[in-house]
Amino acid sequence: MSTDLLSRIRVVLSRTSHPGNIGAAARAMKTMGITSLYLVNPKKPLDAEAVAMASGASDLLQSARFCASLAEALQGTVYALAVSARRRELAYVSADARSAAQLLLAAAEEGEVAIVFGTEMSGLTNEEILQCRAVTHIPADPGYSSLNLAAAVQVLAYEARVAALGAQLSPAADAALARHEDVENFYAHLEQSLLASGFLNPANPRRLIPRLRRLFGRVLLEQEEVNILRGMLNSFDKNT
Amino acid sequence: MSTDLLSRIRVVLSRTSHPGNIGAAARAMKTMGITSLYLVNPKKPLDAEAVAMASGASDLLQSARFCASLAEALQGTVYALAVSARRRELAYVSADARSAAQLLLAAAEEGEVAIVFGTEMSGLTNEEILQCRAVTHIPADPGYSSLNLAAAVQVLAYEARVAALGAQLSPAADAALARHEDVENFYAHLEQSLLASGFLNPANPRRLIPRLRRLFGRVLLEQEEVNILRGMLNSFDKNT
Repeated sequence: MSTDLLSRIRVVLSRTSHPGNIGAAARAMKTMGITSLYLVNPKKPLDAEAVAMASGASDLLQSARFCASLAEALQGTVYALAVSARRRELAYVSADARSAAQLLLAAAEEGEVAIVFGTEMSGLTNEEILQCRAVTHIPADPGYSSLNLAAAVQVLAYEARVAALGAQLSPAADAALARHEDVENFYAHLEQSLLASGFLNPANPRRLIPRLRRLFGRVLLEQEEVNILRGMLNSFDKNT
Repeated sequence: MSTDLLSRIRVVLSRTSHPGNIGAAARAMKTMGITSLYLVNPKKPLDAEAVAMASGASDLLQSARFCASLAEALQGTVYALAVSARRRELAYVSADARSAAQLLLAAAEEGEVAIVFGTEMSGLTNEEILQCRAVTHIPADPGYSSLNLAAAVQVLAYEARVAALGAQLSPAADAALARHEDVENFYAHLEQSLLASGFLNPANPRRLIPRLRRLFGRVLLEQEEVNILRGMLNSFDKNT
């Protein structure tokens, strides 16, 4: 492990309301050596307030990537971690910030990874969470758990840095991990096959797909495993 | 260890320049369950900006104790931890934030303790540091280590809370895990379905089943997930 892995971490801010918070988040990231900022449909353009709050980290604002969707921001990543104030039932893997940072860094050995933050008021939507491989929460006081966006970024970035500095992380799998888009294509194929076989009833889907996403999301699927699963589905499709 | 100990922690802000930073620090503290705020000679009185930045934590501003010296703020404590961006040779004990939080919580079992932060620009003076029992630093990026005051408070308060929560952090799985024999039955069913569909060729099995076992073996499958997977296979079987 080394801090070089931090260069493989994207901080993704989805639909942020206040440019000042984006600036403060950039500063928080940079203090921990994370510099890759992705902005999904921010409510307002970056402004003087954003630059002021970024302080010495305004270079991160200049190099920020603007994305039209979360899927675009996650393209090419092998792992995405959703940050949520609430525990989510449907989440694949729910881990406190410390454990989640260790999983994140282990995945970063394989490729690009992302930490995803939602809006200041309501966080991430369920749909956004389902695009991530795991969800994490900061163990805040139940009586007042309202961390400022930049504060949440600071805590996760700090944990990621400490995890990167630490030496005792479990060795990563040596097989190539599947990319985000390949996993998404597998889910789409799975849904299609289950519709065709009749197991998935569009009139009464019974949370089937979210549950299957939650199952497979708990595995760091490898590229070849996705190929096997797709081949398996193809074999079932032929007979449908 | 318990979160009750957090009520024994004072956050001491010395000579803070901007009231807004005091408000943001109050918010950061409160999210972690720390509510006791001591202000040593703030440069300006608390104002509307402080209240705005405190968000739902303005009660901490109202109950803040104003002190004429650091010595006054530390009166009655059994342990004080100075936070510094730089490593300080002159400190008695220098520890990273995580270890320092553990020392702090151990001391809190004995009585009141304090975490002490200096000014936004220059931090604590040597004289202030010498009044503390230990000094801690947040392991920031050497190239840009300028954490906002409230961000530094957030990290230390977070570490204190995690230390207080001790071992109870990792959430136990609340869903019933599948039994060994049910998982084995699923594998047997999967093999059968793949033989029927033609994807598994008994003359040339290509390690398919071991690979699928390896995949599903990485998940701690829940009982209900096994049921879903079996149902899925049944739906494919019908069409084969």
